[in-house]
Amino acid sequence: MNRERIKKLLEQVRAGRVEVDEAVEKMASLPYEDIDFARVDHHRDLRLGFPEVILGQGKSPEQIVKIAERILTNSSNLLVSRTTEQVFALIRDVARDAEFHPDARMISVVRDRTERGDGSIAIISAGTSDIPVAEEAAVTAEAMGNRVSRIYDVGVAGIHRLLGARQEFESARVIVVVAGMEGALPSVVGGMVSVPVIAVPTSIGYGASFDGLAALLGMLNSCASNVTVVNIDNGFGAGFVASLINRRREVVSGP
Amino acid sequence: MNRERIKKLLEQVRAGRVEVDEAVEKMASLPYEDIDFARVDHHRDLRLGFPEVILGQGKSPEQIVKIAERILTNSSNLLVSRTTEQVFALIRDVARDAEFHPDARMISVVRDRTERGDGSIAIISAGTSDIPVAEEAAVTAEAMGNRVSRIYDVGVAGIHRLLGARQEFESARVIVVVAGMEGALPSVVGGMVSVPVIAVPTSIGYGASFDGLAALLGMLNSCASNVTVVNIDNGFGAGFVASLINRRREVVSGP
Amino acid sequence: MNRERIKKLLEQVRAGRVEVDEAVEKMASLPYEDIDFARVDHHRDLRLGFPEVILGQGKSPEQIVKIAERILTNSSNLLVSRTTEQVFALIRDVARDAEFHPDARMISVVRDRTERGDGSIAIISAGTSDIPVAEEAAVTAEAMGNRVSRIYDVGVAGIHRLLGARQEFESARVIVVVAGMEGALPSVVGGMVSVPVIAVPTSIGYGASFDGLAALLGMLNSCASNVTVVNIDNGFGAGFVASLINRRREVVSGP
Amino acid sequence: MNRERIKKLLEQVRAGRVEVDEAVEKMASLPYEDIDFARVDHHRDLRLGFPEVILGQGKSPEQIVKIAERILTNSSNLLVSRTTEQVFALIRDVARDAEFHPDARMISVVRDRTERGDGSIAIISAGTSDIPVAEEAAVTAEAMGNRVSRIYDVGVAGIHRLLGARQEFESARVIVVVAGMEGALPSVVGGMVSVPVIAVPTSIGYGASFDGLAALLGMLNSCASNVTVVNIDNGFGAGFVASLINRRREVVSGP
Amino acid sequence: MNRERIKKLLEQVRAGRVEVDEAVEKMASLPYEDIDFARVDHHRDLRLGFPEVILGQGKSPEQIVKIAERILTNSSNLLVSRTTEQVFALIRDVARDAEFHPDARMISVVRDRTERGDGSIAIISAGTSDIPVAEEAAVTAEAMGNRVSRIYDVGVAGIHRLLGARQEFESARVIVVVAGMEGALPSVVGGMVSVPVIAVPTSIGYGASFDGLAALLGMLNSCASNVTVVNIDNGFGAGFVASLINRRREVVSGP
Amino acid sequence: MNRERIKKLLEQVRAGRVEVDEAVEKMASLPYEDIDFARVDHHRDLRLGFPEVILGQGKSPEQIVKIAERILTNSSNLLVSRTTEQVFALIRDVARDAEFHPDARMISVVRDRTERGDGSIAIISAGTSDIPVAEEAAVTAEAMGNRVSRIYDVGVAGIHRLLGARQEFESARVIVVVAGMEGALPSVVGGMVSVPVIAVPTSIGYGASFDGLAALLGMLNSCASNVTVVNIDNGFGAGFVASLINRRREVVSGP
Amino acid sequence: MNRERIKKLLEQVRAGRVEVDEAVEKMASLPYEDIDFARVDHHRDLRLGFPEVILGQGKSPEQIVKIAERILTNSSNLLVSRTTEQVFALIRDVARDAEFHPDARMISVVRDRTERGDGSIAIISAGTSDIPVAEEAAVTAEAMGNRVSRIYDVGVAGIHRLLGARQEFESARVIVVVAGMEGALPSVVGGMVSVPVIAVPTSIGYGASFDGLAALLGMLNSCASNVTVVNIDNGFGAGFVASLINRRREVVSGP
Amino acid sequence: MNRERIKKLLEQVRAGRVEVDEAVEKMASLPYEDIDFARVDHHRDLRLGFPEVILGQGKSPEQIVKIAERILTNSSNLLVSRTTEQVFALIRDVARDAEFHPDARMISVVRDRTERGDGSIAIISAGTSDIPVAEEAAVTAEAMGNRVSRIYDVGVAGIHRLLGARQEFESARVIVVVAGMEGALPSVVGGMVSVPVIAVPTSIGYGASFDGLAALLGMLNSCASNVTVVNIDNGFGAGFVASLINRRREVVSGP
Repeated sequence: MNRERIKKLLEQVRAGRVEVDEAVEKMASLPYEDIDFARVDHHRDLRLGFPEVILGQGKSPEQIVKIAERILTNSSNLLVSRTTEQVFALIRDVARDAEFHPDARMISVVRDRTERGDGSIAIISAGTSDIPVAEEAAVTAEAMGNRVSRIYDVGVAGIHRLLGARQEFESARVIVVVAGMEGALPSVVGGMVSVPVIAVPTSIGYGASFDGLAALLGMLNSCASNVTVVNIDNGFGAGFVASLINRRREVVSGP
Repeated sequence: MNRERIKKLLEQVRAGRVEVDEAVEKMASLPYEDIDFARVDHHRDLRLGFPEVILGQGKSPEQIVKIAERILTNSSNLLVSRTTEQVFALIRDVARDAEFHPDARMISVVRDRTERGDGSIAIISAGTSDIPVAEEAAVTAEAMGNRVSRIYDVGVAGIHRLLGARQEFESARVIVVVAGMEGALPSVVGGMVSVPVIAVPTSIGYGASFDGLAALLGMLNSCASNVTVVNIDNGFGAGFVASLINRRREVVSGP
Repeated sequence: MNRERIKKLLEQVRAGRVEVDEAVEKMASLPYEDIDFARVDHHRDLRLGFPEVILGQGKSPEQIVKIAERILTNSSNLLVSRTTEQVFALIRDVARDAEFHPDARMISVVRDRTERGDGSIAIISAGTSDIPVAEEAAVTAEAMGNRVSRIYDVGVAGIHRLLGARQEFESARVIVVVAGMEGALPSVVGGMVSVPVIAVPTSIGYGASFDGLAALLGMLNSCASNVTVVNIDNGFGAGFVASLINRRREVVSGP
Repeated sequence: MNRERIKKLLEQVRAGRVEVDEAVEKMASLPYEDIDFARVDHHRDLRLGFPEVILGQGKSPEQIVKIAERILTNSSNLLVSRTTEQVFALIRDVARDAEFHPDARMISVVRDRTERGDGSIAIISAGTSDIPVAEEAAVTAEAMGNRVSRIYDVGVAGIHRLLGARQEFESARVIVVVAGMEGALPSVVGGMVSVPVIAVPTSIGYGASFDGLAALLGMLNSCASNVTVVNIDNGFGAGFVASLINRRREVVSGP
Repeated sequence: MNRERIKKLLEQVRAGRVEVDEAVEKMASLPYEDIDFARVDHHRDLRLGFPEVILGQGKSPEQIVKIAERILTNSSNLLVSRTTEQVFALIRDVARDAEFHPDARMISVVRDRTERGDGSIAIISAGTSDIPVAEEAAVTAEAMGNRVSRIYDVGVAGIHRLLGARQEFESARVIVVVAGMEGALPSVVGGMVSVPVIAVPTSIGYGASFDGLAALLGMLNSCASNVTVVNIDNGFGAGFVASLINRRREVVSGP
Repeated sequence: MNRERIKKLLEQVRAGRVEVDEAVEKMASLPYEDIDFARVDHHRDLRLGFPEVILGQGKSPEQIVKIAERILTNSSNLLVSRTTEQVFALIRDVARDAEFHPDARMISVVRDRTERGDGSIAIISAGTSDIPVAEEAAVTAEAMGNRVSRIYDVGVAGIHRLLGARQEFESARVIVVVAGMEGALPSVVGGMVSVPVIAVPTSIGYGASFDGLAALLGMLNSCASNVTVVNIDNGFGAGFVASLINRRREVVSGP
Repeated sequence: MNRERIKKLLEQVRAGRVEVDEAVEKMASLPYEDIDFARVDHHRDLRLGFPEVILGQGKSPEQIVKIAERILTNSSNLLVSRTTEQVFALIRDVARDAEFHPDARMISVVRDRTERGDGSIAIISAGTSDIPVAEEAAVTAEAMGNRVSRIYDVGVAGIHRLLGARQEFESARVIVVVAGMEGALPSVVGGMVSVPVIAVPTSIGYGASFDGLAALLGMLNSCASNVTVVNIDNGFGAGFVASLINRRREVVSGP
Repeated sequence: MNRERIKKLLEQVRAGRVEVDEAVEKMASLPYEDIDFARVDHHRDLRLGFPEVILGQGKSPEQIVKIAERILTNSSNLLVSRTTEQVFALIRDVARDAEFHPDARMISVVRDRTERGDGSIAIISAGTSDIPVAEEAAVTAEAMGNRVSRIYDVGVAGIHRLLGARQEFESARVIVVVAGMEGALPSVVGGMVSVPVIAVPTSIGYGASFDGLAALLGMLNSCASNVTVVNIDNGFGAGFVASLINRRREVVSGP
């Protein structure tokens, strides 16, 4: 793209249709070329089914709706995270096919439902209270074109429940594990599979859980080598990276 | 005991053999009576087989030997923790039956080998590097008259190893679980048994383990309700409390 | 139990009443057997008088009532922790014999009142503000079939009050000590008795208490060897472990 | 596999060649079956080219050599991490084709050099002092059958160097970014690519870097959604997960 | 000034118009002279265009208005930080030309609009949510007589946006960079310019951002040598120091 | 006192008016004697003018009033800290001479106004927002019979203000210094005087003040040797210890 | 003093012996007058028996000896803290009456042995390992002219030992309490006496003691109102403040 | 430069001496052009007198010498920080005019001694032990062409010393303040001047100084608005930024 534009300019210079000094000026604006390239990249993203995501937290309902409207002119899919039913009511005015996911506190518009994953993504959560974060990961992964299986409430203090659910997750291409308190679940799951495990600490707990710090440190020190970690309560990030890992090759290298 | 002494004094007062003022003086020394009581308690401890323990760390070899010598005049059993082979050489001069436990970094003299436990104590460790702390717990519990079963290197990232060893620990009266890194093992073990689990975080790990802090926080936030925690690397404390829990009733309430 | 089911299956195979392939299928469901085992375990728990416990925090009143209802079909006893009077009103509709413990913020249903403890459990608290956490421990221990003696407001800065109450706790089989601020009480109590002491730090205090961190660290560093620690404000956990320690031997090894 | 063994046993029972009680005994050993399964898993790992890894830290040279010897009887490839040239001298006695990687502080034996990756793995490091950790990731990824491109010394304070190296990493299937100090590089790289980025904080720095804590927190809070994090200085873990992400599909689902 | 007063006093002493003892008394009040000097300094400040600043946080609206009134009798310019529209309504009663800056949560009265800067000050912010802190810096710098250019929403995960905006900030005399989350922007900007960069961490983020701690540590560990740091969310301080750095020489050394 | 009671009892035993066994029972209640002793101590406190103090925080208005009533039957003076005007209204019903100190958030009843101090106590505060904590110290010290001089708003960034106020504090017998933010004032004051300085960190500040932690650490690391520290916001404790230090000798050793 | 110098100058001005401009110059040097005043203060200190103290840590032996020599020309007493026997050998060359205190790691020269205290100072330590810090406090207090009583090894886990030693400390004018691990001793002591208690946390302990942090936090949160705290291991500071508190009135207000 | 190269290329294209495709290739290498630009920038730096700086820490003596040699072919001035006398011996072989600064642990080569500062830079340090960090700042500032005045050992606990030295620093264009322990000095200095103050916390101290954390937090919370902060012990950074602030205008905007 960029190269095309440069080539065209050089040909115009050679043909004498553009003066050297004028061309120098245009070359000097190359940072904008970079922006141009970014736009292309951005287009490519859209075409590949990456939804645009608006972090709802810290934005006014009006701001969210305005941004959503602009995105939907170019993009098939849209996600709003950390949002409310009130914002959903407003979004529905500009996108009648929007859906609200109360557990995940997310709004999605999914117009392009092409499956883009190689395999499936398993989302495992330790306790009932971890479900909102797990759902944030699950809704994100689904909106990005993945098959998702949810395995909830299988904390390590009842290991037989996890063992009983083994079949449901051992065929996944990548696993997201969401846990608060001591954050031990990713290590146990990590030891049972040979695919990447993305650990999400949650702020669930009290006292010495220090708002998720205990779970975070536990996951960073996991004795399973296939575990990586995202920020506390960052279900969206986990679902996003899981989608990138699962992305079908031909799709990634697509036009 | 104390009551006996008071009664005798009162009778002497009544009989006129002791003057009121003299008796008042003796009463005023009641804090010493408290110390006296402590001595009785101390004797009872010895008789029950609680070894005296010397924390070797921060004491000179000469100090340790001198204290050991004094203890062994009254006491059958003795433990020295966090010590060295060099100290052992000196101790053997005053107690030829002393034993050195290199893994546990402990010296023991066990002359009274009465079994005092109701059941057995299982000591479980996550990794090979946690063994020194686990051995400190095991040697302590053995010196206090307990049957001990050791189950080492059964970390949570290879859960089948732990499941395979289940039989070895599920009949124990109390379990000590030693783990560094993420400290997840006590939660998993705790969920598999219905007896108390004493968790010992170790300083094993690197980076965000922060010298055992990650393991400590993990254990304090355990989702298993039967887990309590001792200080980082405190194998002795875990072995000591496990022995108290396992202590045979008739022994505890003994004369 | 599990063995019985396996044996029956094998006998059916031998008798030709079950096909090999069908039996293989059933064997494959062995994780469910594990769940089955868990159920048996669960039944055993109920029979032994362990109440089922619902952590109220983070659940809606409706969820709590629904879970409570299901538990009470199989179980004599039930505890709801960190709950409110509002939930209690709803619970009473499904269990007219439910009781509310406002200090402990707990609801209990205790239909099986068999005493299951060897001795008694003493619950000691440092200050008036620590009482809610102490009561959580006390109500838990009582619901689990233990005799409990409460010794409140005996903080270390008035050591004579603690000495005066000595008789009340020195005959206990296990002691729970609840304290905020500097968390010094477990060390002092621990030095006065020869039974296990379970220390519960509370979030009571201000400034450099850092929501219970100071008390927690103090307890972990206790110079008394018979002290173990649970999470900040975890009265339930302390009461639970104290009950396991106190559990009568014949009961533990019961059918 | 396991199913085969169970089927064979059942057929023997049916045929009356094995008694029911004997079969029950064998069933009871099912945890060992689990271990057996683990071995199969282990074999599969070997066949797929996952090297066995020995964490050298905390093991004696003799222990390392003994373990290495045993592994090499079953396994083509072997890695020893956090080790020394002294250990290498000993290892070479049992594996003449062993190689020492001084920067990575690793020993590798790579007899199976099948390429197993879909694409390539880029390893980017911020500063010269981060290279040992970056090399640990690179050597791991190479030993696991991946093409690796190294892009070192491209810290964010000289952004043009990173931009100049863009071509070298934007075609990778997954990127490992190693950085100490403020740990900003993963965010910048993450924003330039659409593949997963694994961030490795290093303990490089001084003062308020607090041995890598600053870098770790920076990476966990990355504003780029495609970044996940491993423990401080955990180059091996990053290389391992990158290899899992890059693993060729047909290989993963192999026989 | 002070010297003038001392000189005058000495001349009066010499002339015999003031007694030695009386003069000694006046000398003894020299601390007040110091205060006097401070007043002079204060006057000089006003003359140079330093506005007086009232930190609104923790003061009642009445207190703020009373202080504002007193300042405006001597001073041309005034700033109130961390304030509300409600306070603004009251301030307008005493200063009809007061302005409210809702984003910055500041009130300004700027009657002396002399330009006092050598060059311009660039204020760069990473995300939309960082704008309130950036505006606090910008409004402060403007009220102190500087030309300010605002470059917002150029976070490091979209490096091309920052590169595209390069021209807008590379001619500044000093740059303020405001960022939350990982706080990486100051390092990148610092590497692109050769003027001082003042980094302001914000409390924007969640989880392991620990209310701005992650950003603060990131900035303190910046690998760019021209970065200094102020307190979390301290936009005012950054704007103040930037103004001092940019201050025109002749103005600084003014009468 | 205690001795008197013991003596009387012994004389009764000797006279045969009390049986030995009955006397033994009474002796056994010696812990209560300890409490009795405590009461005497308590009486001595009252006589010396130590007010009883009720920490209002965490108590219901009714509880506070009930305790206050009981104290005032034996005690001349009373303090309630961390309380509200609402509680004051209730207290006034039982003590018409009670006073409310809104800045200090304290209620005082001072019926015995004997001066008990050797010298005076200076209370110095850094900023306007530190005044509530400073007033808590001041009201406490006054209620305990001390002359108090208040020197407020003399923070270190305007050192001439502190120098100007030097005369007001350099004659004090002990100085309380209250400061938030960087907590530097105690060091500066400590270097100017040769009496003890009690430093009180306050939770005033934002960002990296971490609710008073920065001030606390600053004060603990003071380079002035005469500085000791109390908990964050603990004005009462500082006023209490200052009173003990200032206490007139003859009073301390009083009857 | 200062006033005298100013008066003399003014008289010289009046007499015409000093020119006004020359006098202005001298006045301008008034900060030096301040230093002059400091010297007077310094002299007063010496006369009152405050020894000069050299912090040995971080100074070369030569530097220490040079400073010591200069001090001893003006001062009767001298202390060197955190020093070694090697430095002592050098000091003895310039002060043959110097003494070395190996436990306290201090050198003292005490030529003026006037008793300056009102009462005595009690130094209490919890464990044997806390003795070096306790001795630093004791040697400091003795060198400053106080009677000191040492009560060592009376930790809270053996409360009867402390009660038994009560008489030794309850008559002190001020008490220094030195403790590591959980730092509980100051609270217990504080509750037993009505004089100020200065708490010194030590870095003794391991694991979650975090080099004295646990003890420090425990002491800051003491439930006894008469406790103030100094830095970890700061025995010198505690001994210094205790001396100021104990200082005899007539001495303090001396000429 | 870059523009020149582009222009030349374009002219060659126009003249037909370079083919369009070949030129496109060269354009594609524009990132290298960027590096080229960096070199130009670098040249400009040299011309302006910015020395190249080598961080000695973590580099071998050989690496340092090699880098130094390369720098000195293009650059007049050179600094090596955190280095040793041993490295100096080697450097002198390639630069006979190199100087070693033992206090600052720096090597400098200063061939271009043009004064580049508007005013002077004052370096103030609190204690003797802070001098190495202060000297690092001073040597850096001098090597960058500034007049530097050193004011050492003027800690806040002896405020008169600082007041006495006022004249030496109040005329500076920018002030660097270096302090450990409580880090209070920058606030006091900041309040005395109207120029920027750069605060450098040092790791000097013990106990609760936590290796400079206390000083760092103190400085970040400074109540003086003109204070910014650099990393703990980062004397070089402070000297560098101070030089940028002091840089003469005409020099900055130079050709």
